[in-house]
Amino acid sequence: RIKASGLKLQLCTNETQATRADFVRKLRNLGFDVSVAEVTAPAPAACHLLRERGLRPHLLVHHDLVPEFAEIDKTNPNCVVLGDAAENFTYANLNEAFRLLIGMEKPVLISLGQGRYYKETDGLKLDVGAYMKALEYACDVQAEVVGKPAKSFFESALAELGVPAEQAVMIGDDIVSDVGGAQRCGMRALQVRTGKFRSVHSLPQPAPILPHPASAPPSLLHTL
Amino acid sequence: RIKASGLKLQLCTNETQATRADFVRKLRNLGFDVSVAEVTAPAPAACHLLRERGLRPHLLVHHDLVPEFAEIDKTNPNCVVLGDAAENFTYANLNEAFRLLIGMEKPVLISLGQGRYYKETDGLKLDVGAYMKALEYACDVQAEVVGKPAKSFFESALAELGVPAEQAVMIGDDIVSDVGGAQRCGMRALQVRTGKFRSVHSLPQPAPILPHPASAPPSLLHTL
Repeated sequence: RIKASGLKLQLCTNETQATRADFVRKLRNLGFDVSVAEVTAPAPAACHLLRERGLRPHLLVHHDLVPEFAEIDKTNPNCVVLGDAAENFTYANLNEAFRLLIGMEKPVLISLGQGRYYKETDGLKLDVGAYMKALEYACDVQAEVVGKPAKSFFESALAELGVPAEQAVMIGDDIVSDVGGAQRCGMRALQVRTGKFRSVHSLPQPAPILPHPASAPPSLLHTL
Repeated sequence: RIKASGLKLQLCTNETQATRADFVRKLRNLGFDVSVAEVTAPAPAACHLLRERGLRPHLLVHHDLVPEFAEIDKTNPNCVVLGDAAENFTYANLNEAFRLLIGMEKPVLISLGQGRYYKETDGLKLDVGAYMKALEYACDVQAEVVGKPAKSFFESALAELGVPAEQAVMIGDDIVSDVGGAQRCGMRALQVRTGKFRSVHSLPQPAPILPHPASAPPSLLHTL
């Protein structure tokens, strides 16, 4: 309906359990007409940053995300890239990433998002942000966050749309990563009551709440 | 040498991978003449707190520490007790503790220490503090720390010694848990260059540094 209305659309995802190509394949299988160019995701943004600064990452990410870093030099790591590694968040892997960081003269930790948790069919799961905090505390460093809610991430999505912040609306269920990040970037934001929505969370600025994305009335689309 | 000099001695440990009895057994096997009463440790302190407040813990601790909680009601948990669980820090166990906490109306997280990391023969390992930070962030709560550097922990050790803070000296290798905690409690502190000592860490107050505990000159003991 958004596309049919003539509005521009960009999907801003912190998905780091799959490549963008896999992510788009999943959406297309669900019946959504989406292309890779319409997706803004953390891993390509991180690759850009790594190349720019000559960083060679040790990856603590999901197996399925590794192909996004195929072109990146990973020998003799001088930084750690942390994603939602899920089952790869083992005690051994966390200790390994920690040891590399603490052994660096100036530890560089790049985190693909800073979400607190997310919901899967079998329940809530700790997101990358929790593990980021663990490594930040242990190494006394501050992670550089690539992905929502980083301002640079929303700005890159706006650039791809060719739309200024004040003419764009972010729709999402995460109060920090989606709504807060977009608001700090000068966009308006809508929170949906799906997924991880919890009524107890407060907002920096009040945002309208949608029971479900599909419930957005046609009039709303016209006001965007 | 400390005992022989007539000074009082209390061992303040954040050891949460074993019961106090096991800990003392290990020290005695290494040739140290130590009794359980000379050891201040987090688990007994946590049990005291749990009983006092009618809390029923879900334990995310090391297997070998579980016996310390034998007398505690653990049915239908209304708090989470976090220790250095080591190999028990699995993705599944962390998610389980997280889900219990986030499901509580007012999440209560009790952490047996807040150390950043420690050294074992096979290298540095993330300590309980890192996992505490992960759960704090995910659940937007602040953990109650039992163990070093909590003031109550040092006070309880001083009470067992029957010595006021200004007449006691803490000796340890951890800049935060040992030195910082003792200083905030009004004690003097010595940092030893063993274990996790790193020269880059700065102190709230400068503390004398010993190359090794055994290198303390006899004159030092007289000045304590």
